[in-house]
Amino acid sequence: MIENLITKTLDEKFKALEAENAPGQEVRQDLSQLEHIMKGGKLTGVPVDFSHGDVDAFPPTPNSDSYWQEGFKKGGAQAYTEYRGALNIRKTLAKRLGDFTKKPVLADSELILTPGTQGALFLALGATVATGTKVAVVEPDYFANRKLVKFFGGQVVPITLRYLESNSNNGLDLNALETAFKQGTTVLVFSTPNNPTGLVYSQKMITDIAVLANTYNVTVIVDQLYSRMLYSGEVYTHLRSCQVQPENLITIMGPSKTESLSGYRLGAAFGTPSIIDRMERLQAIVSLRAAGYNQAVFETWFNEPDGWLENRINQHEAIRDELLEIFRNANLQTATPQAGSYLFPKLPALSVDLNTFVRLLRYQAYITVTPASEFAPHLKDSIRLNFSQDHDAAIAAAKRIVKMVEIYAL
Amino acid sequence: MIENLITKTLDEKFKALEAENAPGQEVRQDLSQLEHIMKGGKLTGVPVDFSHGDVDAFPPTPNSDSYWQEGFKKGGAQAYTEYRGALNIRKTLAKRLGDFTKKPVLADSELILTPGTQGALFLALGATVATGTKVAVVEPDYFANRKLVKFFGGQVVPITLRYLESNSNNGLDLNALETAFKQGTTVLVFSTPNNPTGLVYSQKMITDIAVLANTYNVTVIVDQLYSRMLYSGEVYTHLRSCQVQPENLITIMGPSKTESLSGYRLGAAFGTPSIIDRMERLQAIVSLRAAGYNQAVFETWFNEPDGWLENRINQHEAIRDELLEIFRNANLQTATPQAGSYLFPKLPALSVDLNTFVRLLRYQAYITVTPASEFAPHLKDSIRLNFSQDHDAAIAAAKRIVKMVEIYAL
Repeated sequence: MIENLITKTLDEKFKALEAENAPGQEVRQDLSQLEHIMKGGKLTGVPVDFSHGDVDAFPPTPNSDSYWQEGFKKGGAQAYTEYRGALNIRKTLAKRLGDFTKKPVLADSELILTPGTQGALFLALGATVATGTKVAVVEPDYFANRKLVKFFGGQVVPITLRYLESNSNNGLDLNALETAFKQGTTVLVFSTPNNPTGLVYSQKMITDIAVLANTYNVTVIVDQLYSRMLYSGEVYTHLRSCQVQPENLITIMGPSKTESLSGYRLGAAFGTPSIIDRMERLQAIVSLRAAGYNQAVFETWFNEPDGWLENRINQHEAIRDELLEIFRNANLQTATPQAGSYLFPKLPALSVDLNTFVRLLRYQAYITVTPASEFAPHLKDSIRLNFSQDHDAAIAAAKRIVKMVEIYAL
Repeated sequence: MIENLITKTLDEKFKALEAENAPGQEVRQDLSQLEHIMKGGKLTGVPVDFSHGDVDAFPPTPNSDSYWQEGFKKGGAQAYTEYRGALNIRKTLAKRLGDFTKKPVLADSELILTPGTQGALFLALGATVATGTKVAVVEPDYFANRKLVKFFGGQVVPITLRYLESNSNNGLDLNALETAFKQGTTVLVFSTPNNPTGLVYSQKMITDIAVLANTYNVTVIVDQLYSRMLYSGEVYTHLRSCQVQPENLITIMGPSKTESLSGYRLGAAFGTPSIIDRMERLQAIVSLRAAGYNQAVFETWFNEPDGWLENRINQHEAIRDELLEIFRNANLQTATPQAGSYLFPKLPALSVDLNTFVRLLRYQAYITVTPASEFAPHLKDSIRLNFSQDHDAAIAAAKRIVKMVEIYAL
């Protein structure tokens, strides 16, 4: 029966979207069986949810709510914007994003405002992936990339990212990438700084990717969500300002992380006009637009008070350095995040599987982390922490993680 | 080449999503060629945009911004909710929606908060339509329904809605509906009150649909967006509280219209838990959640000051009655909206096609309306007005529409 086939397709499609272990959904898990598995007693300490940044510890950009209120007061003109966002806001942002990425952005044709960077990713992949499209997906990388490709009927072509070696050897497996391009992969999606490892793709790596994508006419979607929180001594390269670059390129950013504006659901995608057009058509049936009043808060972006960003970066760098010391002293191999607030320590062999360990962390040690398998299906030995947290609570929690590893180590 | 086939599929998919004539997007149209077609001079008057409600004329529920501010002050707990929305808000809303629709709603398993009702529709159809799914789509009905079905690879099975006859004959063509169900249609999506005509499905009609869907095991998605703005003497029937009903049923509502909270992008879907689960999985990759701070504004919903809703309904009813009089006096056949703020007058034969007439209305008479073809592809003789506008401006604009019809009548 055709209907049975369709039902099966839908079942499989939504099996691939399983979100039980996704960051933020832990509250829906049943932890009642852990009592029988738990070794020893509960560890005391302030609960820390490393699954996302703590916007109470690092609050939103100053006065974001006043900007929101201004938007609200504007009334209808702010409530109902074009699906791609209010033109005056796009004009302001196009200038700032052009300056930041070192290549002009046209407000009218090259920019769309979206409900968060998640919204931008969804629209970008929806505009470029259909049944059968082969998409190069980096592993490990943001957990939704793989799911999005599958949802749109595409085929995931995994490309390995080296992140645990010395810096000079780090990066994407370019041979595998070229092979994939030769064999009909038409889209590449990746994040830099990489989520979950904090690796920043080097200038050479970005240039090589741009040249390959240009050569094989591959559409590139690059998620630069965390590119503003760049630690001391690090260099960031924007693919969109490379000399040679892919004909079809979308860059995605947003103020949800460094700027802690996640509660507003704001994101931006910019690049090739024909893809931006499609993204807007899709937006029209997905959620119409980023919430109108919230769009007004974009005014604060790249417009923070003097020293605010530097201070925020310094505070995160201090947490990063202490966490790295704690994990490395406990022999948990951990790459140094060059940007962003993700840390991805590798665990030794444990007496329980990774998902169980992650649930035990929550039940026994009041710590929420995300298992590596969300970022690369085969990775079962690492956990991701978003260390944008209260400094002292984060350090204490990291020590509890080390203790938990000792308890459950084989 | 496989790649060429995929490109063709994407091209066709996005052709079906063409949004040039969609409500709110008129600003992107090029009107420069109209000078040569225009007959006579421009008509003076206050510009009126009937493509959506005017939230300056009918402002948001009182103090919605204070509720928003309370949400913002809650910080992280409000910024990061479960993908299906904050539990405390779901608990409050589940009770109110259960009371309104006369059947309890379970906060934990039967309700999801979404970015607008558009977001809810997208998730509901995404959760139930795959390549090949036959979906009964009412004509005329909300313009995105058809587009959504096509985007997910489904097949539109159009079912005619009679709306211009005497009330007793109005409604869905149930024979056509049963035939469609017999021939493998597995999903039905429709709105009541109907957008664009304002027709409210009668109790008998709703009961008959419920029985048919139950008999043929069809999933029903019913968009009740405007069900609170019910005019005097009218009766509203909720499908979800019928005695016999489909096993899979999702009801969609939201505070964007009657309550003018569209700038917040808030919607709600409630019904069958397995579909709600899928909708949440999809939400996780679409935009994560309805903007966290904005969710706090749901507190105002079904909680408006005494007399506020009645007053709002009365004001709309007064506009409706005057508009009906103007259009009917000019022999423009127009169904009486029983609820909501849409009016769908039928035009006589014109010397220009419908899209051109609609653009002329904008260029020559400063009036924005939506062409009927957005709601039913074959309908080329009607226009939709959202009459939630400043009373006097709406009346004056309706008179300009009549004048424009006279100018361009064959």
